[in-house]
Order: sequence, then structure tokens, then C-alpha cells
Amino acid sequence: MSSDRNHAIQSIEWLEDHLHIIDQTFLPKRLVYTDLRDVGRVWEAIKKLRVRGAPAIGIAAAYGFYLGIKDLSEQNFNSFWVEVERIAEYLNSSRPTAVNLSWALTRLKNTIYANKEKPVSEIKERVLKVAITIHEEDKRTCKQIGIKGQEIIKDGNHILTHCNTGSLATGQYGTALSVIYHAHKKNKKIHVWVDETRPLLQGARLTTWELDRAAIPMSLITDSTAGYLMKLGKVDLVIVGADRVVANGDTANKIGTYSLAVLAKEHEIPFYVALPLSTIDISLENGNQIPIEERDHDEIRKIGNTLIAPEKVETFNPAFDITPNELITGFVTEKGIIYPDYKEKFKKLLKG
Amino acid sequence: MSSDRNHAIQSIEWLEDHLHIIDQTFLPKRLVYTDLRDVGRVWEAIKKLRVRGAPAIGIAAAYGFYLGIKDLSEQNFNSFWVEVERIAEYLNSSRPTAVNLSWALTRLKNTIYANKEKPVSEIKERVLKVAITIHEEDKRTCKQIGIKGQEIIKDGNHILTHCNTGSLATGQYGTALSVIYHAHKKNKKIHVWVDETRPLLQGARLTTWELDRAAIPMSLITDSTAGYLMKLGKVDLVIVGADRVVANGDTANKIGTYSLAVLAKEHEIPFYVALPLSTIDISLENGNQIPIEERDHDEIRKIGNTLIAPEKVETFNPAFDITPNELITGFVTEKGIIYPDYKEKFKKLLKG
Repeated sequence: MSSDRNHAIQSIEWLEDHLHIIDQTFLPKRLVYTDLRDVGRVWEAIKKLRVRGAPAIGIAAAYGFYLGIKDLSEQNFNSFWVEVERIAEYLNSSRPTAVNLSWALTRLKNTIYANKEKPVSEIKERVLKVAITIHEEDKRTCKQIGIKGQEIIKDGNHILTHCNTGSLATGQYGTALSVIYHAHKKNKKIHVWVDETRPLLQGARLTTWELDRAAIPMSLITDSTAGYLMKLGKVDLVIVGADRVVANGDTANKIGTYSLAVLAKEHEIPFYVALPLSTIDISLENGNQIPIEERDHDEIRKIGNTLIAPEKVETFNPAFDITPNELITGFVTEKGIIYPDYKEKFKKLLKG
Repeated sequence: MSSDRNHAIQSIEWLEDHLHIIDQTFLPKRLVYTDLRDVGRVWEAIKKLRVRGAPAIGIAAAYGFYLGIKDLSEQNFNSFWVEVERIAEYLNSSRPTAVNLSWALTRLKNTIYANKEKPVSEIKERVLKVAITIHEEDKRTCKQIGIKGQEIIKDGNHILTHCNTGSLATGQYGTALSVIYHAHKKNKKIHVWVDETRPLLQGARLTTWELDRAAIPMSLITDSTAGYLMKLGKVDLVIVGADRVVANGDTANKIGTYSLAVLAKEHEIPFYVALPLSTIDISLENGNQIPIEERDHDEIRKIGNTLIAPEKVETFNPAFDITPNELITGFVTEKGIIYPDYKEKFKKLLKG
């Protein structure tokens, strides 16, 4: 793993013939790398959140797709294509909410179909190249999100963030955290309130780890402390990532984001969502159409192997919620900051 | 420990010469009882949350106070009184926010001072009697809170609650949970959303355990899921307890309560606070004057002995927040439900 100025670790690397990732389930206790050499391992890594964050899922899935197709028979395009569709569907089943997953798979399938007259061996090489391109584009995109977005942060600001949206969630830098990293690079004095982000504690485990490496001042809080901090006047802006944004600007993101947005409105605090344009899904009109992943009861009942509730207690564990567009001050993208009306502006941007 | 119809366990008992409590730090894994035979052990039990919940803290402190004074020299009232003040101050230092603690200690000190002409041995007996009275009164009070409060719950309601406000937090039945228990006793079909209540997980560990014993349907959620549930139309009312309510109705309660109140307002959901009148402190005018306990970093960094964040990460860990009176639909007390204007009504009730 390489790192750029200590705060842009790369959590995913392609090493000639396999994927090399940080297994995020071990953080912050141990920095464990793992090699993924087949599509089944990639599927499992996405499902189990060894790799997570919408852009990182897209990147891992792209490489996983290549690992899935690389040993297929090369004799006949039609039978190759049947397998291609099966593998794409399989990978797509790992997690339902983040759109980057299906976005990456669709792009690769389109590449294959567009080249169907070529020898299958050549198509396979092309797929790997596109996977690498998706990865490289994401790094550049995230850097641009940070460079363009840092203007929303002023010297002395206290910024509240939720979940992990940093280098661990993307190719490099991140989305919301990229904005924070780049404000810090500009020598703005900032302080970050890190929501621990129950149940899987991506804030406590991952965001603190990243900010610590970058020497950015921060305090970890429980999720339900955010409202009180706003009331005390200690939050200047909120910035989060996104798993899927639809045509009207409604945003699926980690559970708890909606509450933060309501609380920010109540306290007249700007609420920004940072994301690559690839996270926008204009095929859906509004947030009600986004599938919300419900995860296992044990994510709430246990922390690690420690039972923190009665063993069989019923839970409700949606991984995401939907924040309506009217609660969002602006979207920070690689093309700059987008203010309402989102619908019109998204259309224009995604055409261009 | 006795229990009334399986859902009114008593978490505190006075056994002739010592205090017998459920050590709540072991729940829900193990039901562990512990005997407290001196004031130091009671102080430690309150500090470490072996006994917790504003009314239960008041009860335990009352008995602890008796344990502290019972072996003092009986020769001279003045030297006895010096020790009495020292012991009261010591117990009062265990936790700063819940007013029931100082309320119980002041009541006992007043008892002593009012009887200062009597032999010290007799005064000591009187103190034990008043401690027992405080305990018995709390049981009756909590039952009345439930009986009077249950009318706010309708058949079919989904009720959201935070922290633990049940038999474990009081002499019996609880405050907010007493309302829920008594609605259930009336055969209303109800379902409870239990906020896990980070960092110490009183919802996940204690409220689920109590509701389970009472066979009341429930689902455990992370604290940041509450807003999304409200948005989905799945919460009919919110009911919580209180650690201190001041003259104008501003309410100190477990961290996260303020956020719930803002979210309830946004979704036009009634938001009730249940409490004994002894939790009202009319000596303070507004919530800004309530001391807020900040607890140890490790409560957020660790769960049990498991580190869930970088070892030295800075945290902000207030145990309580303040909910302004205008966000509160009504207070459920042993004297009935109080609607605004709180200031006037509190004054009248506390005089009578």
C-alpha cells in the first residue's frame, strides 16, 4: 500500500493478477491486508464489509468481475456472454443500496458487448483495462471533490461527519473526508466531530483511524450526541457521503444521516453531501424507489463477539436511510458544488 | 428479589441491615445480586452505574446514607452533625445530574436536624425509617405514574423509548416504562421501539431485558434509526424519563433525548416525559443551569473490554442533554399528566 502525505492511504490495489485490500473489519486494532484471487472472495469481501464505501465497492466489484471472467472458455462469445451475465448478477447481489456496484458492472458489460466481434481473450484484457480505469478515475475524482469542496470549510470550523467516507471508502482521499483533508492541506484550522456510526462503528473504527494518520484534530462522539452539540453551537457544518442519490436529489446514505439532516435544519447548519457523479442514479425519480438493505440482527445484538443485548431480541437494522433533497444544502462533486434545483442540474451534468 | 406479575422486579431491597441490589452492569448476560454493607460501597455502586436511574439513585443513596451514619458515635449531636454533613456531601459527589440524589439526602438531613433534641441512636432509627419511606413512596409513585399515564397510549401504538426507565431505574415499575407496563396490563396491543442508548447501552441491556420478562413486543434499534422510523410513520409517540426537570420544564435526560424531541416535533409525534415530582427542581429556572456530567473517554472507546476505536482518541461524552420545555408535549407524573404552562402548574403541584 502506498500513501500520499500520510493521509491518502490506498485501501485497494491491483497487483498484476489479483486484488490486494485492507480488510477493514480488523481496523483500528490491526492493519491487515488480504489478497483476493477469485470472484467468490471478492463477493464475500463486499458482503462482509471487508471492503466498503460506495466508490470502493464499485472498484472492488470491477476487479472481481475481471477475476470472474478471466478463466472462462474463449471459444465462443455467446457462451462467454451467458457466463458474463451470471457473474455480474452474482456480484451485484452482494449489496443492494450502493449504486456504484451496478454502475461499474454495467460499464464493464457494455465494454464487453461493444467489443463482441473481437476475440474473447482480447475482450478480457479490455475488461481489466476498464477496471483499472474505473479505479484511476475514482482517485482523480475524489481528489477533485476535495479540491473543489474545501471552499465550504472556513478556518476555525467544527465539522460533523458520519460513517467513513475517506480513503478506505474510495480509491483514495474519499468523498466527504476528501473535502476535510483538502481543507486541512490548505492549512485551515479545523476540528472534526466523528459520529461513531452504529451498528458497525465505521466512524469509531475507520474515520478516527484515517484522521489520526492525517493529524487532523477530532473528537469521537456517540451518534445521539450530534444534536446536543448543534444545540450548543459547536457544529459549523455537516458533511456526509452517499450510497445512492436519485434524480431529484433524495439521498440514500448510512442510517442516521436523515436524523442529522433534520437536526442540521433545526439549527440552521449547512448540510452537504459529497459524492462522485457515478453515485447519482437518474433512473430513479425519488428516494422511495431506492432499495434499502436490512442487515443481520446480530450486528446490533453483538459487538465483535460480545453480546450486548438479549440473545434473541428482535431488531430493526436498516443499513441506510433516505434524506429528502430539501434538507440538503448542496452536493459536492468532482465538477464542483451543486445547489438546487438538483433535478435540472444533475441532468445537465450527467449529459456532459 | 420479588416480582409482581413478572414485570415489576425490584432492583433494590433493604434486608434488615444492608442493601441488596441487582448489579446492572452484568445485565442482560447474568442476573447478579450484590450486597452493599457500607456507604463506600454504595457510593461506588452509584458511580459505576451498578444502580442507576434517577429515582433508584435517590433510594440507594438514602440507604447508603443510613449505612454511613449508623456506626457514628452517639455521644454528642454536634459532632454527629459534622459527620452527617460530610457523608451527605460524599454521597452527593457520586453523580451530579440526577436531582433525586440531593433531594433524598436533603430530606434525610432535614429529618436529622428536626430531631436534633432526641438521642442520636433514636435519630439513626428515624433516618432508616425515612429511607424506607422514600423507597416505599417511590414504588407507589411509579405505579401511579403508570396508572395515570397509560391513557396516552392507544391500542395498536408503536412507542419509542430511550435508555432504561423501568423497575431497574426505580423502586418498582419505573417511570416511562411504568406507563408502557400499565398500558400492556390494560390489554392494549402495543409495540416498543427500544433505542439501544449508547454509550452504556441501557436500552439494549436493560430495557429489552425488562420488556422481555413482561412479554411486551419490542424491537431493538440503534439510536440513529429513530428518526428514520418516524419518517416511515412507524412511531406513534415517544416517552422518556428524566434526571432533572427545572422550573420552566426544561429537562435533563440521557444523551440523545434532545435529538429525539427535535425529530418528534419535525414529524408531529407527541413527546412525553414521565417522572416522579421529586425529579422536579424548582430551585433552577432553566435548563442551562443544570450541571451535565461528562463521563470517561473509555465509555465510548470500549465496549466491555473490547476496544472499538483508537486507544487514545479524544471523545466528548456528556451523559445527559437538555430538552427545552417547548419540545415536550406533557409530563406524566403521579398526580396526572401536566400540559403547559409548566411553570405555573409545577409551582402549584409542588406546594400542595
